[in-house]
Amino acid sequence: MSISKSVKNNMIAGSYIRKMFEEGIALKKVHGDANVFDLSIGNPIVEPPESFNRELHQLVNHPQPGMHRHMEDPGYVSTRLAIAAQLSSKTGVKFRQEDIVMAFGAAGAVNVAFKTLLNPGEEVISFTPNYFEYENYAENHGGVVKYIPADRDLNPDLEALSATITSNTKAVVINSPNNPTGHVYTTRTLQGVAEVVLRRSAELKHRVYIISDDVYSTLYFGQGACPRMVQYYPHTIVVTSYSKDLSLPGERIGYLAVHPQCEDAADVVKGLVYANQVLGFINPPASMQNAVRNLQNSSVDIEIYRLKRDFLYHNLTEMGYSIVKPLGAFYMFPSSPNPDDEVFVQELKQLLVLTVPGHVFKAPGYFRMSYCVDDRVIEGSLKGFKTAIAKYK
Amino acid sequence: MSISKSVKNNMIAGSYIRKMFEEGIALKKVHGDANVFDLSIGNPIVEPPESFNRELHQLVNHPQPGMHRHMEDPGYVSTRLAIAAQLSSKTGVKFRQEDIVMAFGAAGAVNVAFKTLLNPGEEVISFTPNYFEYENYAENHGGVVKYIPADRDLNPDLEALSATITSNTKAVVINSPNNPTGHVYTTRTLQGVAEVVLRRSAELKHRVYIISDDVYSTLYFGQGACPRMVQYYPHTIVVTSYSKDLSLPGERIGYLAVHPQCEDAADVVKGLVYANQVLGFINPPASMQNAVRNLQNSSVDIEIYRLKRDFLYHNLTEMGYSIVKPLGAFYMFPSSPNPDDEVFVQELKQLLVLTVPGHVFKAPGYFRMSYCVDDRVIEGSLKGFKTAIAKYK
Repeated sequence: MSISKSVKNNMIAGSYIRKMFEEGIALKKVHGDANVFDLSIGNPIVEPPESFNRELHQLVNHPQPGMHRHMEDPGYVSTRLAIAAQLSSKTGVKFRQEDIVMAFGAAGAVNVAFKTLLNPGEEVISFTPNYFEYENYAENHGGVVKYIPADRDLNPDLEALSATITSNTKAVVINSPNNPTGHVYTTRTLQGVAEVVLRRSAELKHRVYIISDDVYSTLYFGQGACPRMVQYYPHTIVVTSYSKDLSLPGERIGYLAVHPQCEDAADVVKGLVYANQVLGFINPPASMQNAVRNLQNSSVDIEIYRLKRDFLYHNLTEMGYSIVKPLGAFYMFPSSPNPDDEVFVQELKQLLVLTVPGHVFKAPGYFRMSYCVDDRVIEGSLKGFKTAIAKYK
Repeated sequence: MSISKSVKNNMIAGSYIRKMFEEGIALKKVHGDANVFDLSIGNPIVEPPESFNRELHQLVNHPQPGMHRHMEDPGYVSTRLAIAAQLSSKTGVKFRQEDIVMAFGAAGAVNVAFKTLLNPGEEVISFTPNYFEYENYAENHGGVVKYIPADRDLNPDLEALSATITSNTKAVVINSPNNPTGHVYTTRTLQGVAEVVLRRSAELKHRVYIISDDVYSTLYFGQGACPRMVQYYPHTIVVTSYSKDLSLPGERIGYLAVHPQCEDAADVVKGLVYANQVLGFINPPASMQNAVRNLQNSSVDIEIYRLKRDFLYHNLTEMGYSIVKPLGAFYMFPSSPNPDDEVFVQELKQLLVLTVPGHVFKAPGYFRMSYCVDDRVIEGSLKGFKTAIAKYK
């Protein structure tokens, strides 16, 4: 055995997605790209807004000496000031630049948060269905993930949460709007989570952090701003990126924000900065830190995603699919007409429609569709969805 | 205790450099920037070459759809093809694009290599003086670093290497040109390392990889191309970045290259790709992967560094400092006139010259100077160096 055993084992587990991806490529080769309807991947098709291109032009046409060098360890002060101002105005929590640490997209940021917080064997609680990498991210840093299944409305089961928190719990991860469901927690739900965590912390005399993965919070179709965990729980570390708002997933730029009233906030920030260094991220790309500075209120046109959601939701529910209508992100998570989601996803694949079975997200009995694709793909998939459900009626 | 105990402990250890950095800022406030001569940090002052700016212009003025999205997991094929061609021509080893994995600068790349290779408790051998973060990078992934002190000429002690390799050794790290010394191993030295590792591997029936941190290999002042480990040992993983060649340390772009005859090369490459994902790097910035594609033979003007080295070496040796003349990178590592390098570095600081004591690099009795700074800083430091050594004559 040459490479690490745990990497080898996790590669085998993770290869489900890779296998799907490769099967998709093979299908496209046989049937032609235009005849395979791929709703399996969350790599948005929407281009960055014009404001982003303007910022890039400005940078490239007016280069400043030192603009490609290392900067302050937590990232440019000017960018962190802009983020703190926008986050304060969005959430009502008064963030300062020293509460912000620039990070490599949300995947990097969650790793940095786990590295900072976790002692070996300490636990992180995550509600399923969830983003399947949290478990591996925690394992990277010696942590263990405890899962709590969501209820039928995709909301957290607060009794189970209360029972799962022990003095070995270091953090709870919240991801709303959610991948893979698109579900958004209401203010009342977030308050409920905060109450349970505060009560259990007091009972156990043991602080529990909440890591709030807010990466989809701009892609929100409800009234006003998307409700966010950091508004209701002080010991919150916000994790986010510009990958979805500005459609920049290949550029790896995001940040962590520590609630100014977080327990040991200064130590947590120092820990995040240290973790960024020691994990080898060092700093997110200087050019991107410069490019996003003035784009705190920019985003891709959310209406594009809302229209895709409405079209797909309307058509699928008409056909008889059962779906909790998603209020955010660009995912939909219908119940699988066949109780075995793997079987149903294979049947869809025979019809040239690619989706991901719920078991990948620790939620068997469902499947995930990503609708951040061309309308052509969404429209083309409908025939397959209709044929697939017919035999279950 | 809120944050992880190991992070807290390592932060205290790492804070030596931060403390120095902060003391430097304080000194500059008191005496004025122009009167403090800071040779402590390896953040090059040289701007990227004009060819880099041209590539950026091209990218920004002729945007391609999807250019900010995720790409193939190991990075753009076109960029990896260009790298494979250049690396093949530089080293004589026939690299293919599938041997290359794009990475986040060398710091990210070393973490990715350690994550891929190390089982808990496995050992990595490093020659001191060395880059002090290797130990923390290995610890991130459950590994342990064993140190072997260099000989008086800064070359590896091959007998000690032979004795230190056991069946628990997973890798040897080579860093030539070296940080902190600027020393470059000759072909004969690299062949010697290869012979010892091959012989011990055969004796133990146990494969040992070499991770060759070649980040300074372009900054080479010798004849022809810099000798590289991968030319002499097949089980080599090359780690490098464009931070020094193109002066882009803030942009985090580099790569890993696995020798095509490496044991289990395909598995190692898959492991590196997986580690890139699971550690949250995902892919290095898309824009930078595009920008460096055509710059495989570009670099900053090496003569700038050679002139700085010659000036500093000439003046310091004239004053009586004892230095192994560096053949690469932008560091110099004189013997400390006071056997206690910490004392001598403090004396230099009193004279407003900032350097780093050798003990930080596990090599007490020396100190490091980074000369990737303005000539003004180098010239201004001479008076302090002269005064400092006078009392030891």
